[in-house]
Amino acid sequence: MPRIDPDRLLTDLRALRAIGAQGRGVVRPAFSATDMKARRWLKSRYEEAGLDATIDGVGNVIGRSRSPGKALLIGSHSDTQPTGGWLDGALGVIYGLEVVRALAADALTRALPVDAVSFQDEEARFVGCLGSRSLIGALTRGMEDGAADSRGTALADALREAGLAGVPRLRLDPDRYAGFVEPHIEQGPHLEDAGRRIGVVTGIVGLRGVRFVLRGQQNHAGTTMMARRRDAAAALYELAYRINQEFPTVAGPRSVWTMGRVRIEPNAASIVPGYAELDLQFRDPEDAPLEAFDDVVARLVKEMNARGGVAIEAIRARAPIRPSRMDPRLQSHIEAAAERHAPGLWQRMPSGAFHDAGIVSERLPSAMLFIPSIGGISHDFAEDSRDEDIVLGCQVIADAAASILAEANATR
Amino acid sequence: MPRIDPDRLLTDLRALRAIGAQGRGVVRPAFSATDMKARRWLKSRYEEAGLDATIDGVGNVIGRSRSPGKALLIGSHSDTQPTGGWLDGALGVIYGLEVVRALAADALTRALPVDAVSFQDEEARFVGCLGSRSLIGALTRGMEDGAADSRGTALADALREAGLAGVPRLRLDPDRYAGFVEPHIEQGPHLEDAGRRIGVVTGIVGLRGVRFVLRGQQNHAGTTMMARRRDAAAALYELAYRINQEFPTVAGPRSVWTMGRVRIEPNAASIVPGYAELDLQFRDPEDAPLEAFDDVVARLVKEMNARGGVAIEAIRARAPIRPSRMDPRLQSHIEAAAERHAPGLWQRMPSGAFHDAGIVSERLPSAMLFIPSIGGISHDFAEDSRDEDIVLGCQVIADAAASILAEANATR
Repeated sequence: MPRIDPDRLLTDLRALRAIGAQGRGVVRPAFSATDMKARRWLKSRYEEAGLDATIDGVGNVIGRSRSPGKALLIGSHSDTQPTGGWLDGALGVIYGLEVVRALAADALTRALPVDAVSFQDEEARFVGCLGSRSLIGALTRGMEDGAADSRGTALADALREAGLAGVPRLRLDPDRYAGFVEPHIEQGPHLEDAGRRIGVVTGIVGLRGVRFVLRGQQNHAGTTMMARRRDAAAALYELAYRINQEFPTVAGPRSVWTMGRVRIEPNAASIVPGYAELDLQFRDPEDAPLEAFDDVVARLVKEMNARGGVAIEAIRARAPIRPSRMDPRLQSHIEAAAERHAPGLWQRMPSGAFHDAGIVSERLPSAMLFIPSIGGISHDFAEDSRDEDIVLGCQVIADAAASILAEANATR
Repeated sequence: MPRIDPDRLLTDLRALRAIGAQGRGVVRPAFSATDMKARRWLKSRYEEAGLDATIDGVGNVIGRSRSPGKALLIGSHSDTQPTGGWLDGALGVIYGLEVVRALAADALTRALPVDAVSFQDEEARFVGCLGSRSLIGALTRGMEDGAADSRGTALADALREAGLAGVPRLRLDPDRYAGFVEPHIEQGPHLEDAGRRIGVVTGIVGLRGVRFVLRGQQNHAGTTMMARRRDAAAALYELAYRINQEFPTVAGPRSVWTMGRVRIEPNAASIVPGYAELDLQFRDPEDAPLEAFDDVVARLVKEMNARGGVAIEAIRARAPIRPSRMDPRLQSHIEAAAERHAPGLWQRMPSGAFHDAGIVSERLPSAMLFIPSIGGISHDFAEDSRDEDIVLGCQVIADAAASILAEANATR
């Protein structure tokens, strides 16, 4: 069985952390200067590991093995949230690199082809999972046209500034691969609460989003009597409160919903707002609760619009995500490796967060491994995991990769 | 009786509009380059009208008559909202200038002393009615210390950048004055709806403000189960909705309340917000409803805090305003002039908006005149009034000024 090098693994993880580091966190949003710097650094690391490496036209970094036979694709994303943690995405990217090196260092696994990848814009600065969507051929013009970040920068401009205009975009060749494995931090508290060190992911929750646009009449907060107002913010508060009251009545046991972004115009204490936006996002491992939430939203908007006053428009997010299942065969390889290195300390679990594996699973058998997040904290500068869990997770992936590839190439 | 010059009045109003004009509106917030340019322009206009003019250490522009006897102070403010209308404040400032000129042009009124004023920061970029508070000696260190605008610029820095650091601040000498008159647009729809052309203000509503600071825990919107969340935005929506549900049960007939400013951190659709702010402002001509609103706020905050989860802090605004009464004697002079020029087309009314007259009335007998706002619209680029109403209002003020001063100086 291959042996990973813990020092080399942690050193490279910290080297990646340093690109865009701010305090304990990392600021490396997709296509930013720090993001592109990290991608060029990764490309050179892939090449040093013996891979043929490319940065494609959407910023995906892909390192391809020169060995023949069915390959395994391992990786995640290296872009971060606007104020992100150091392991979200980065962990799986550096695992991919280290597994390539560990297998190459062992005579028994040297010939097994492992490709490494860092996808672009998983964190949805422009389009969530932009890179993996592009790789599998599922990035539509409708998703790209008019895509802009929260400051109004257009995707096309960000691509040009990153030097990617006109650069070819790679397409996945499904015949090349036995599958895709994405290692990741859990980003939740379940493993830590249960005292487990490894999670083997059974499926990834589906996700839908709605942007509510509320249009009223801006006016003076002192002279406009209450009965005469068309206050966009007051309508927003009511809509959000009622969603939070009604969703629990149709929710599944693992449903979550969030209204984390608001815009109010002109956002001044002494002006009745004439315009507001509210983003709603909801997730579930099953389709039925997602449908039920959509129905509640439609009913509330219809009811509030029937009153007159503020007009509410519900705009569906451009890239909804269906619940996806991870491949049972790949899962069983990861489970066997987890039981070998951490007997009794692993578990099966769904992923509440979305990941590139949810996209890639539309084309390739896919699997995910989780390691614990300290305190369950993620999407925050405080995000962290214990070094021994980081090392353990990589060793489990290295073992699983060897057994997946041995099986895939033996049965041809 | 003095005759104002309609062309001169409208020409100067439009000249002031041009300083900071954007489309139909004006962007001239307190201490901005356009605001200070407008103040220097006003100072020279005051001087051309024969006044001794000064820009004092907070930016007030004051033009003093050289005539002996009790003086009348006339004016308003020339700073605007971040995206303001062209008449809010500017109307009363140019009326003051025109009344000085009209009285000086008539042999019968030439000796009557009228001072003109443009106060600073009525619109609360830093401290609402900063200039009039300073003039009457009611601007406390507590109001100034730490005062900053919505972008975090400190008042002290804004004063320095405007060239006002170390410039003396003028103090009102109550013995000099028979009173203060502030002409203003109504900023509401009442005059237009009633078919009246002049409003004589009986009193100004009181105003209190609360900033709610809500502290929860930032986390991942996919992996953090609902039961575990401490979502600052969800608490904000509930608090705001319940305020809008409960305030009507204790409100007076003219009560208004507004929650026009929200801040959510980090304000991203896929992150459970850990921090939020909500500004609540409420107004009434009487103290009792203001007290009742304060009680509702205290009860709701106590109740929500008792649940644990998100912690809510209610911070009182630094400069609350008590309801104020306009002087009956000054009102009767304005009413007589209004009846002379627009018989049957004027009315008494309270002011729902706050004005510098509410501050000055603490030291001097004060009065206000309103002209109609088209569509009741204000604090918006679309704010406007009809030329004939602008001219009529100024003539009424000129007549009233002459009769107020004749009486004040005859009875000494």
